[in-house]
Amino acid sequence: MVQEVVFRKFLSFLEEDVPFRDVTTDALIPEDVVVRAHVVAKQSCVVACIDDIVYFLERLGLHVKELVKDGAEVEKGAVLLELVGPARVVLGVERLMLNILMHCSGIATEVRKLVRLVRKVNSKIRVAATRKTLPGLRYFEKKAVLVGGGDVHRYSLSDAILIKDNHIKIIGSVEKALEIVKNKASFVQKVEVETSTIEEAIKAAESGVDIIMLDNMKSEEVAKVVEELKRRGLREKVLIEVSGGITSENILEYAKLDIDIISCGYITMSSRASDMSLEVVEVIKK
Amino acid sequence: MVQEVVFRKFLSFLEEDVPFRDVTTDALIPEDVVVRAHVVAKQSCVVACIDDIVYFLERLGLHVKELVKDGAEVEKGAVLLELVGPARVVLGVERLMLNILMHCSGIATEVRKLVRLVRKVNSKIRVAATRKTLPGLRYFEKKAVLVGGGDVHRYSLSDAILIKDNHIKIIGSVEKALEIVKNKASFVQKVEVETSTIEEAIKAAESGVDIIMLDNMKSEEVAKVVEELKRRGLREKVLIEVSGGITSENILEYAKLDIDIISCGYITMSSRASDMSLEVVEVIKK
Amino acid sequence: MVQEVVFRKFLSFLEEDVPFRDVTTDALIPEDVVVRAHVVAKQSCVVACIDDIVYFLERLGLHVKELVKDGAEVEKGAVLLELVGPARVVLGVERLMLNILMHCSGIATEVRKLVRLVRKVNSKIRVAATRKTLPGLRYFEKKAVLVGGGDVHRYSLSDAILIKDNHIKIIGSVEKALEIVKNKASFVQKVEVETSTIEEAIKAAESGVDIIMLDNMKSEEVAKVVEELKRRGLREKVLIEVSGGITSENILEYAKLDIDIISCGYITMSSRASDMSLEVVEVIKK
Amino acid sequence: MVQEVVFRKFLSFLEEDVPFRDVTTDALIPEDVVVRAHVVAKQSCVVACIDDIVYFLERLGLHVKELVKDGAEVEKGAVLLELVGPARVVLGVERLMLNILMHCSGIATEVRKLVRLVRKVNSKIRVAATRKTLPGLRYFEKKAVLVGGGDVHRYSLSDAILIKDNHIKIIGSVEKALEIVKNKASFVQKVEVETSTIEEAIKAAESGVDIIMLDNMKSEEVAKVVEELKRRGLREKVLIEVSGGITSENILEYAKLDIDIISCGYITMSSRASDMSLEVVEVIKK
Amino acid sequence: MVQEVVFRKFLSFLEEDVPFRDVTTDALIPEDVVVRAHVVAKQSCVVACIDDIVYFLERLGLHVKELVKDGAEVEKGAVLLELVGPARVVLGVERLMLNILMHCSGIATEVRKLVRLVRKVNSKIRVAATRKTLPGLRYFEKKAVLVGGGDVHRYSLSDAILIKDNHIKIIGSVEKALEIVKNKASFVQKVEVETSTIEEAIKAAESGVDIIMLDNMKSEEVAKVVEELKRRGLREKVLIEVSGGITSENILEYAKLDIDIISCGYITMSSRASDMSLEVVEVIKK
Amino acid sequence: MVQEVVFRKFLSFLEEDVPFRDVTTDALIPEDVVVRAHVVAKQSCVVACIDDIVYFLERLGLHVKELVKDGAEVEKGAVLLELVGPARVVLGVERLMLNILMHCSGIATEVRKLVRLVRKVNSKIRVAATRKTLPGLRYFEKKAVLVGGGDVHRYSLSDAILIKDNHIKIIGSVEKALEIVKNKASFVQKVEVETSTIEEAIKAAESGVDIIMLDNMKSEEVAKVVEELKRRGLREKVLIEVSGGITSENILEYAKLDIDIISCGYITMSSRASDMSLEVVEVIKK
Repeated sequence: MVQEVVFRKFLSFLEEDVPFRDVTTDALIPEDVVVRAHVVAKQSCVVACIDDIVYFLERLGLHVKELVKDGAEVEKGAVLLELVGPARVVLGVERLMLNILMHCSGIATEVRKLVRLVRKVNSKIRVAATRKTLPGLRYFEKKAVLVGGGDVHRYSLSDAILIKDNHIKIIGSVEKALEIVKNKASFVQKVEVETSTIEEAIKAAESGVDIIMLDNMKSEEVAKVVEELKRRGLREKVLIEVSGGITSENILEYAKLDIDIISCGYITMSSRASDMSLEVVEVIKK
Repeated sequence: MVQEVVFRKFLSFLEEDVPFRDVTTDALIPEDVVVRAHVVAKQSCVVACIDDIVYFLERLGLHVKELVKDGAEVEKGAVLLELVGPARVVLGVERLMLNILMHCSGIATEVRKLVRLVRKVNSKIRVAATRKTLPGLRYFEKKAVLVGGGDVHRYSLSDAILIKDNHIKIIGSVEKALEIVKNKASFVQKVEVETSTIEEAIKAAESGVDIIMLDNMKSEEVAKVVEELKRRGLREKVLIEVSGGITSENILEYAKLDIDIISCGYITMSSRASDMSLEVVEVIKK
Repeated sequence: MVQEVVFRKFLSFLEEDVPFRDVTTDALIPEDVVVRAHVVAKQSCVVACIDDIVYFLERLGLHVKELVKDGAEVEKGAVLLELVGPARVVLGVERLMLNILMHCSGIATEVRKLVRLVRKVNSKIRVAATRKTLPGLRYFEKKAVLVGGGDVHRYSLSDAILIKDNHIKIIGSVEKALEIVKNKASFVQKVEVETSTIEEAIKAAESGVDIIMLDNMKSEEVAKVVEELKRRGLREKVLIEVSGGITSENILEYAKLDIDIISCGYITMSSRASDMSLEVVEVIKK
Repeated sequence: MVQEVVFRKFLSFLEEDVPFRDVTTDALIPEDVVVRAHVVAKQSCVVACIDDIVYFLERLGLHVKELVKDGAEVEKGAVLLELVGPARVVLGVERLMLNILMHCSGIATEVRKLVRLVRKVNSKIRVAATRKTLPGLRYFEKKAVLVGGGDVHRYSLSDAILIKDNHIKIIGSVEKALEIVKNKASFVQKVEVETSTIEEAIKAAESGVDIIMLDNMKSEEVAKVVEELKRRGLREKVLIEVSGGITSENILEYAKLDIDIISCGYITMSSRASDMSLEVVEVIKK
Repeated sequence: MVQEVVFRKFLSFLEEDVPFRDVTTDALIPEDVVVRAHVVAKQSCVVACIDDIVYFLERLGLHVKELVKDGAEVEKGAVLLELVGPARVVLGVERLMLNILMHCSGIATEVRKLVRLVRKVNSKIRVAATRKTLPGLRYFEKKAVLVGGGDVHRYSLSDAILIKDNHIKIIGSVEKALEIVKNKASFVQKVEVETSTIEEAIKAAESGVDIIMLDNMKSEEVAKVVEELKRRGLREKVLIEVSGGITSENILEYAKLDIDIISCGYITMSSRASDMSLEVVEVIKK
Repeated sequence: MVQEVVFRKFLSFLEEDVPFRDVTTDALIPEDVVVRAHVVAKQSCVVACIDDIVYFLERLGLHVKELVKDGAEVEKGAVLLELVGPARVVLGVERLMLNILMHCSGIATEVRKLVRLVRKVNSKIRVAATRKTLPGLRYFEKKAVLVGGGDVHRYSLSDAILIKDNHIKIIGSVEKALEIVKNKASFVQKVEVETSTIEEAIKAAESGVDIIMLDNMKSEEVAKVVEELKRRGLREKVLIEVSGGITSENILEYAKLDIDIISCGYITMSSRASDMSLEVVEVIKK
């Protein structure tokens, strides 16, 4: 998004946190007090969406030094941003700024961890997110995935064909679904099918889909699908995505297989926020 | 919020997930196909915000049976909702509906767990959330806290005075801050002060604040503050809130003390989503 | 509110006044004509929300001299602002700017008058506004109350507990209502009860509410409540708010009593606007 | 406006009054409590915008009896509306509903009074409002003017040409301004000119404008302008509007003259709200 | 509109074209690459709304040279704008910028052509647009009409009275409709009536309407109406608008008549866009 | 989009056409007048977006008979919709409803014509739209393309990779661009490259892109590219899109070639609206 559009989102978020006034700061601190403040990491993490935050803060008139860039890995105690400006503005945006940075950095940190784990055993597999994102925050969460080194997967229901189990239940079979889609999907969109058995996976690959998603399969089952696809000369013709209940604890079981993508819904829905705080370090002008 | 206002939020969230069309479902499924579907818990949890979801689904024309109510504890496999309506609508809202329910139920589940832990040793302490909420989702997250049995704490910067460390750094001292606030705060708003030493806590209590927050103190330090307040006859005049790094692992250390509130930022920022899924159980009409 | 958020409100207001074009100015005046203009008070008043107006005008590219500050008392003829910029912009925002300034200054002027009246006989009573505000304008109206020297009271239904007569009718009694609320209200929110008889007032004070509102009572009745509270040693334990039909004409009857707050709904709903005008004083460049 | 559009405005207003929850009602009253309530006039008034309120309440699911119609004159004690529905909804919208009704009815009441005064001496003069309206409320305020029997005048800067003193200062003279406008104004828009001297008024009439506004002239001066226009055979060719400082106290001085319109800015900016209240009259179901 | 309001529209349009990210440009081009680019006319046209585009681009931080002004007639190959700024911004707004410029210039070009045709035979007739505009784009399309030399006609249903055939069908007759309107229309609004027979046209003129619209009449019929109006001494008392199926192919038949306005719905609904492109001419900094 | 989201767009469009009131209809027609009205095609066309219009009208309380479905080809005089409801609502939405239907049906009609032309000589080529859509209307215009039988191509910059000439100018070469993209594009998105010479086209195909767009090439050049791709055994590995200046007049030159997609920007930007009108056919209740 053009940053001015992202800025508009931040203003809406600000209205949530300050529907009328910051009753504490407005009461305590005159409008001409200027401070210098630091955003400090309170645990090591991969920083994400700091560029959006910098644009936001500058548009509100603060002077900002961006001490690290998106994607940087920082240690506990690292100063990420230095802000100078009216205390009322700095304290008024503190919580929003931290909430975004902490949430997005938490996601990027988890993704980076998964990517590192996978890289140890397989140089080509991508770690991908899903559409299990928090409503209203998809732009930020998907960006955090990218920053962490992951693949964003679909942004929305409008940008690729993904035939899921519920579709197949309604249509009757994978083949029938693929036949319909072949005529109706736009030529610019890939077609992916979620399959839960070896048979379905093979049928899908034979039908010429671009991607097959093996959903909630154990790693041994996945291995069998891969083997069967190879046996039939289909392996190179499709991408294989594995999904369902994969976390840092079991990802290596899958990473060692000849697959293309491992996707994890928990990355965006359930990553722990990276702890950070804002510290006023100097009162410049009262 | 009046539910029609919440509904408007859901429509904005829907636009995020479907900026144009659900290219898969629109291609595959004719508009007159009607299905029956279940929302199923895939792990035990405390259900939250299901009433908002029901209103949302009904406003889109679906027939909904709300099989459990907000606050219910359900086991893995429980059916939470039964929906009947056009497949296109059901599948178009699936992800949004689940993302909200899973996130909010995850929060309520964590709060319920904390409240249970605390109740074992102390019948009066409240477990409270903070303003560490995900931007745009405060209504839902704070409601999930309530549903779980927690205290919502401040909704926004506009609804109570909370003097934090950064305010005090700028003003110079707790006393000075309290003096200013006494004249400027509205009579309808309570005044809380964040303190990090015994001395500050005592001074704050003596100044007549309504609540003192003991931030990032070890339980032994908190115990000393409580004792000192009692010694000076101040204990009954203030509420004591303890905050900072408290999780289910260490909450009992604090819960056994004579304090009033334990607040935990991680509840809203870092709870794990409760897993759920939507399953089409019948194609009623093609 | 952060001023950029207030600015967004002004843009929406502008769309109301100029849905397409300013057909007069666009027809008459070329876009490169620059003027100097004054905002002039046409009657004495207390100026309010001029800082919001200044931010708004500067964001539209005008050069603005803010000749008086919020809260200033000005005489008829005083120049409040000097603007320099394109005639089309100056004339396009004239009415909106004046409508806000005139309305808010009218409120601040009335509040200041009431506060002065009260101060003559009682140094501690606060004059407060209510939620009788014009929809969409609460931020501005409550701010004008503050600027005038008043207390804003509740900003919204979300920021304090106020049990009113309709609640009590439904619940059955003040005691029952207070019992419920004690468990359910957040610890950060004060509890106020509207009472219309001495008995109710006493019961409320005994139950430990923070504030009792004596609604539509004559001053003699209020005096009796105060006396009875004192007799029972309860006076210092609650704040007493008096409300209902109080204006500058009868406020002194109440101001001489030992109460804490006098609230007046008419301040925000029915104050007269302070008359002002915009005068082009120089055509700088054609 | 189509009523669904007006409804959207009401929802935005509701968000202002309930940014999160109605903390009092939600704590006190279970969601299944249903009440019957009355909206009662606490002083005589002309009711305005009650149709918009009825649509709003019905869209929120309340059952509404509209006991009087827009434009009705009611006495103190009259019941305007009867509502039946969930107590939480009724109490959640109470203040917003009353604020709109009270404000609009206050305006309609004042307009009706002025129209009656004028009618006593002159059967053709119209009483008109101006663009001195409260930002965001123009639709409601102009409608209240109509309901009261007044003329709405311009809705916005986009709907008629009105050349004011500031335009003339910039352009140099009334004649020059009229010459420009003649070529540039759309053929569907009338042209009005504000004049402050007899000479300007005559010149304007001679130039063929549709309406001349005599601004801030004493009634004797207005009489002279009218006479001079008649003498020159111009009276029937223009409408004459009189404006500036006219209230119910001096309107009769102008009403007896041969003019067409009297406009009053205070109607919309400074009318007193008509007092009303909501009273729960029955708890139908707990 | 004040340009900041127009800018807000552009941001909404941008969200349509970039709901998440420009996946191509973000992948390919680092954020510090700066380019110089030209907007080039690929066919001759009358340029419209370029000032709005310039404001939009500058607000996004681009340096813009506006090489031609609104209303300029340019040849194929002409450079309209030169932009310098980050490649990501330039390419992110390319399509939106071109879509507006091409559409508006297409309208202005068609209007200019019609005006020229008409001017050849009649110096006083205006060419007007209608309310047949594309939803959401009326500001731009009406402005393009002005830029082309046309008359904007009504902006909306709120700014003039136009009694159409459907109104008359419901009311019963032109006379009845005019009688009602005379009392109810605001004095600032002109009254126009759509008529489809000579009789109706005469009746309307006799009733004192400001404008009569002769709808879907052949030029000979129009000529008869004009003649009859002259015979009765009514011609000078009304404006005559001719409408319905008039294009550049038959406009001269009408232009030679003694009428005042020719309006064409196709101008805004069906003009061909003027072809333009954006060309990166220099990569300044990588 | 879920239809309630589309409905919201319609409400915004309505505000554009009725910022305050429909001054004509509100003056003329009492609110209890009910009419029956028809939407009639005034020329033959392919109807598009009628389902969205039906939902919109029903949500405003009208009774609607949808006499033809999206995609139907109708003759001049055909009745598309029958509406029954309050005259004020019917006339208030008339223009908006017609503007959408006429514009979308114009697009669908043009697309159908192109598809028919192409089908005569080639059964597999798709006719596609582009992102040359009118800002704010992409949902409607792309849907009209689908209804007409075309391919929507990219909805937005977020849903597929399309490397255009400007990207290549900045990056340096097609190969370099493709190398970068291979690593950075999500696995769910296809990659298309715009090429303007045979050499580029071959290089792109060899690099493994999904689609090559031959931009502004004459049909003979396109033929050469196809031949060369076949010679190298690459034809089956890529889709070939042809674009640039193709209209119904020259489309057959391209349609006879062995290509996959012909895309035309003019479809959405420059199609003529299909003429329609609303006719009140009965006044049911006055």
